[in-house]
Amino acid sequence: MSMIILGVDPGIRITGYAIARVQGGKTSIFDYGYLPLKGEKSVPERVAEFHTFFADKITSLNITHLTIETPFMGKNAQSFVKLGYLRGILFLLSQHHNLVLHELTPRQIKQAVTGHGGASKEQVALMMNHLFPALGQLGKTVKQDVTDALAICMSGIWVSREG
Amino acid sequence: MSMIILGVDPGIRITGYAIARVQGGKTSIFDYGYLPLKGEKSVPERVAEFHTFFADKITSLNITHLTIETPFMGKNAQSFVKLGYLRGILFLLSQHHNLVLHELTPRQIKQAVTGHGGASKEQVALMMNHLFPALGQLGKTVKQDVTDALAICMSGIWVSREG
Repeated sequence: MSMIILGVDPGIRITGYAIARVQGGKTSIFDYGYLPLKGEKSVPERVAEFHTFFADKITSLNITHLTIETPFMGKNAQSFVKLGYLRGILFLLSQHHNLVLHELTPRQIKQAVTGHGGASKEQVALMMNHLFPALGQLGKTVKQDVTDALAICMSGIWVSREG
Repeated sequence: MSMIILGVDPGIRITGYAIARVQGGKTSIFDYGYLPLKGEKSVPERVAEFHTFFADKITSLNITHLTIETPFMGKNAQSFVKLGYLRGILFLLSQHHNLVLHELTPRQIKQAVTGHGGASKEQVALMMNHLFPALGQLGKTVKQDVTDALAICMSGIWVSREG
């Protein structure tokens, strides 16, 4: 059995992503990074760019699974609805490409990554930095998004193995 | 000059839509109705169904313009994010089909339809019922969504003519 799992932390400015291959007993995260969406572009343009970027990843890397995080509304209702645009695109892609979709709560992600659902954001980041030392080379503004995407992807591996 | 204008009032349960043709001095709303998205289906399935429905309308009716309403958050943050999914799909379609996109505030829509931006929802509904007597045949649960879509579409005609 082989699975290619995409974890995405969508954002209308910076989207983090990470992609893992699970084949037999072997697991490796073989692609991760971020998609910046320029503020000069209109929201519809950014939404379409987001769609093209992930449609290409899904097709070229034969992705089979998609893992995302359950959103909780922060301070800003307008960012929340914009997050919705990108989640809508991910839902569409999951249907068009027959991906197995997992949506995990922040608690489940912390549990999967640190073994403790009540872990702090910092503990999650520490664990990810330990596992992926190359994260240290990323700029401060994008590092958190990539770290979160890696944690989401790792949780996706865990939950996909469960069944 | 000919324009085909689609007005949409998206909803994760009921989406109202209306389509107008503006050709020379002649304007007619030639298609309107609603898309029900069944609650038994998953959200990704409903998002994909919404995408297919409007992609088909856009292609088969040669739609050139899309008009939507600026969202304001109501009581429920979860409905607000779900509205975001559908708006994301409409943005994607506007890019993929090169539609001229107009996003209007509720005030602009009331202004366009009743001539008064401070009009009540009831005044808008009265005006729409007067213009489209067939609305009376619609069930209570969907009538409001179709009425809103008609108002959005009519405002779209108005703003598209402006330039």
